[in-house]
Amino acid sequence: MQGLGVTGGVGLAYGALSTLGLAPAAADVARDFRAPARGDLIGRVDGKHSVVILGGGPAGLCAAYELRKGGYDVTVLEARQRPGGRVWSVRRGTSETDLNGETQTCEFSEGHYFNLGATRIPQGHITLDYCRELGVEIQPFGNQNANTLVHYRSDTPLSGQPVQYRAAKADVYGYMSELLHKASARGALDDVLSATDKEALSSFLRDFGDLSSDGRYLGTSRRGYESEPGAGTDFGAQRKPYGMSEVIRGGLGRNFSFEFDHDQAMMMMTPVGGMDRIYHAFQDKIGSDRIRYGAEVTAMRNVTDGVRVEFTQDGKQQSVTADHCICTLPPNLVGRLANNLPADVLLALQAAVPVSAGKLGIEYSRRWWELEDRIYGGATNTDADIAQIMFPYDHFHSDRGVVVGYYNNGRQQRAFESLTHRQRLAKAVAEGSAIHGEKYGRDISSSFSGSWRRTKFSEGAWVGWRGVSDSHGGHGSSDYEKLLQPVGRIHFAGDHLSNAIAWQHGAFTSARAVVTAVHARVLAS
Amino acid sequence: MQGLGVTGGVGLAYGALSTLGLAPAAADVARDFRAPARGDLIGRVDGKHSVVILGGGPAGLCAAYELRKGGYDVTVLEARQRPGGRVWSVRRGTSETDLNGETQTCEFSEGHYFNLGATRIPQGHITLDYCRELGVEIQPFGNQNANTLVHYRSDTPLSGQPVQYRAAKADVYGYMSELLHKASARGALDDVLSATDKEALSSFLRDFGDLSSDGRYLGTSRRGYESEPGAGTDFGAQRKPYGMSEVIRGGLGRNFSFEFDHDQAMMMMTPVGGMDRIYHAFQDKIGSDRIRYGAEVTAMRNVTDGVRVEFTQDGKQQSVTADHCICTLPPNLVGRLANNLPADVLLALQAAVPVSAGKLGIEYSRRWWELEDRIYGGATNTDADIAQIMFPYDHFHSDRGVVVGYYNNGRQQRAFESLTHRQRLAKAVAEGSAIHGEKYGRDISSSFSGSWRRTKFSEGAWVGWRGVSDSHGGHGSSDYEKLLQPVGRIHFAGDHLSNAIAWQHGAFTSARAVVTAVHARVLAS
Repeated sequence: MQGLGVTGGVGLAYGALSTLGLAPAAADVARDFRAPARGDLIGRVDGKHSVVILGGGPAGLCAAYELRKGGYDVTVLEARQRPGGRVWSVRRGTSETDLNGETQTCEFSEGHYFNLGATRIPQGHITLDYCRELGVEIQPFGNQNANTLVHYRSDTPLSGQPVQYRAAKADVYGYMSELLHKASARGALDDVLSATDKEALSSFLRDFGDLSSDGRYLGTSRRGYESEPGAGTDFGAQRKPYGMSEVIRGGLGRNFSFEFDHDQAMMMMTPVGGMDRIYHAFQDKIGSDRIRYGAEVTAMRNVTDGVRVEFTQDGKQQSVTADHCICTLPPNLVGRLANNLPADVLLALQAAVPVSAGKLGIEYSRRWWELEDRIYGGATNTDADIAQIMFPYDHFHSDRGVVVGYYNNGRQQRAFESLTHRQRLAKAVAEGSAIHGEKYGRDISSSFSGSWRRTKFSEGAWVGWRGVSDSHGGHGSSDYEKLLQPVGRIHFAGDHLSNAIAWQHGAFTSARAVVTAVHARVLAS
Repeated sequence: MQGLGVTGGVGLAYGALSTLGLAPAAADVARDFRAPARGDLIGRVDGKHSVVILGGGPAGLCAAYELRKGGYDVTVLEARQRPGGRVWSVRRGTSETDLNGETQTCEFSEGHYFNLGATRIPQGHITLDYCRELGVEIQPFGNQNANTLVHYRSDTPLSGQPVQYRAAKADVYGYMSELLHKASARGALDDVLSATDKEALSSFLRDFGDLSSDGRYLGTSRRGYESEPGAGTDFGAQRKPYGMSEVIRGGLGRNFSFEFDHDQAMMMMTPVGGMDRIYHAFQDKIGSDRIRYGAEVTAMRNVTDGVRVEFTQDGKQQSVTADHCICTLPPNLVGRLANNLPADVLLALQAAVPVSAGKLGIEYSRRWWELEDRIYGGATNTDADIAQIMFPYDHFHSDRGVVVGYYNNGRQQRAFESLTHRQRLAKAVAEGSAIHGEKYGRDISSSFSGSWRRTKFSEGAWVGWRGVSDSHGGHGSSDYEKLLQPVGRIHFAGDHLSNAIAWQHGAFTSARAVVTAVHARVLAS
């Protein structure tokens, strides 16, 4: 049967191991989804086999967790005082000094938070399987909302005017249907459409665009009502559509494809209580004693029959030597370590170019987005620097909540990253108020912002591979392919070495591939 | 500012009361949303003013609740042993004998349920304000999912083949964009599109359809992957698009407009634990002593200065006389009461024609839709009699869950309603298996079905007004408008007397309008 999702990460691990006789050969493995499970590494290793893992983010903790299943002795070195890396849930008490030198301490109300890094999980990602396996409770993430707004500049009267998403969609779909209906009826497409095709297309377009009997778009209830229909003769007041040219030239549909993108289409999920719940669960399974927090790695060198890693912890220089090393540090930071990596590997690492991205969370003491704008999750989109405003997907009907005042990258993020937090907030509120009105500036009780290029131990939100157009992977990049190979006993892992860059799925599948490779080496030695 | 939702129900209540000097006149009330609140009926009545309410569903309990705020003495007569009427959450222990004479008792596992009636709430509906006011916790309802399937018969090779929703959407949008792009480029629309319009349209269509540089649709990652991209050189296997004619003539897009319909577009919400939580909360606020369960009304008559209602309870004939009566019984059942309603009112009641609808819930002891099909909520659509399969929006990653095996109406429901439960299940499983595969028939631990035309005290899912094309209201129907007027001291209320038929919002706004009218009469007398 066509059409059912499968994930490939598990297949990879099984495939590698089955050649070693450790896992059952399964011809149908590519079609038969299996969650990661205790059996992933069948056959524990005998004796002591040590692996030092640099970085306690998604790749590092996943690797440690899977290696532990196989009986490996693992040590995770993590510079921060928390697990998760770029998966960072900011809540009351979170304190951070950024590379601008500014210290912020979060003062959100108890139970409220926002994810400064990863915040959503597509249904096809192995991340959900880890949530299942680790017992991390999940809930839907609002990644689409007809009641949020679009707000763009254009050369039309609509320029800079906030438009409800449902109205933008109804008008764009309406006019698009009217135009195609007209062209088809005129015979302009008779070389590619048969009479039967034309009839079926017409039927579809009438429904899709809510066209009149003569094929015109004259507005629709899908746009929403000035006042909601109620009882008796309260039939509601429909809003009139914008003009065709205004809608087309205003670019109201410029962001529509987001919601049917492969990794953004609803349903999207997220852990209850913050994305970092996944990493606290990993930590609990791995054992806190095997994760050394506050350990800043300074050197990583292949030595005879092992890898020696130096780090500072509590102001003291320390070192650990292990049989193997899995390095999950951001590729842009690896070259700074004292190392004996070959020059071509160091050059390849430099081809991973950090991307700028950041978020600002604003706690409001009044859920105006529910009370006034009838918004329960989802995001408002704009071409202003804030790019989007993300509404909370939890604490519905509470007396307060945290709105993400911007989540942007590239040029739009660079307009914020050098600012002080107070300046960021002021700019975000000014741009947000231009969309949602002056209430956007009222009832703010606290806020917190982060910029990943200015965040210690990351210095980037994710990477793009130099010379490669695909923002999700390194397809066709020789630098990328070079780093897939181990250097001595050092293996690199992370979302940057996957085709799901900036996704936890990428980090997990990379970690699983590297764990499989390490295990294969150990068993073959 | 354009584009923000408001509801009209509150405006109606305020408007009516302000003419009586009871509520503050508010010129901006239509734009300034206010939740229902204690202040709705400002100024309590003095002395004893009694209202008997027939029916303990959404309209009846809302009316009782609002009247209690104003100091009225209310008695609710409800034939069932539970509140909520057609809002019916079926869970372990639910037992019902239908009008076919068959008794079912639900054996779902503890905590699992399905809503046999109302199950979702649009963001604009006053239902959410009652949830807020009553403290009923809400969560997102999965009303759209790229991973569910569409499955339709057609005259193409795709006939009867299940296709993932995301693939159907990508192909339909792709070809639609290619065709419109081509027509525009050929100059077929030059009379309605300026050169600037054409350029903007082309830019939109390339993104919307994921077209190639020469404007063709050649497939897209939006369709999903045969295997999900993972680490290293696991770039994933994209699925090839179907042919243009197959897609158009196969009617793959026939249901797309559902998800941007005014009252179905995401985000949609629902109470945690079942829709009936709202009515248990109403019951607690009203006071159980004011609601008489098991009270089957047999007569309703205007008498001097009041209304006399007769009913049977515990096998005994009883009666109550009150100053006013609010009758929320289904319009199709009112004429059966002993009554002294005028002939034209009885005729008007007959113009409300009951619609057939029903659902069947299947508890599986394995969440195959998550494990194999990567589906977390939403619905599969088909033109088979089951019409749709709805996946649970809660208990994610549990070891079990309740799938709604059909939710259909009209002809499709009539194919089920006369069957025994066992026959319904067999038919639903056969049709579901043709879509989701043979796993659909495995791991079934229990099931429960209901057909509203065969359900005592309802005998219909909702009504359509004779001679009116609008399925959501009675716009233009003289029968509808007649029933908006009280008959003596009897007022009719219910979703059938609103422009949101089959929605709780309709019942609530109707109840609020009638409460306002009763209050106005009392104060004017």
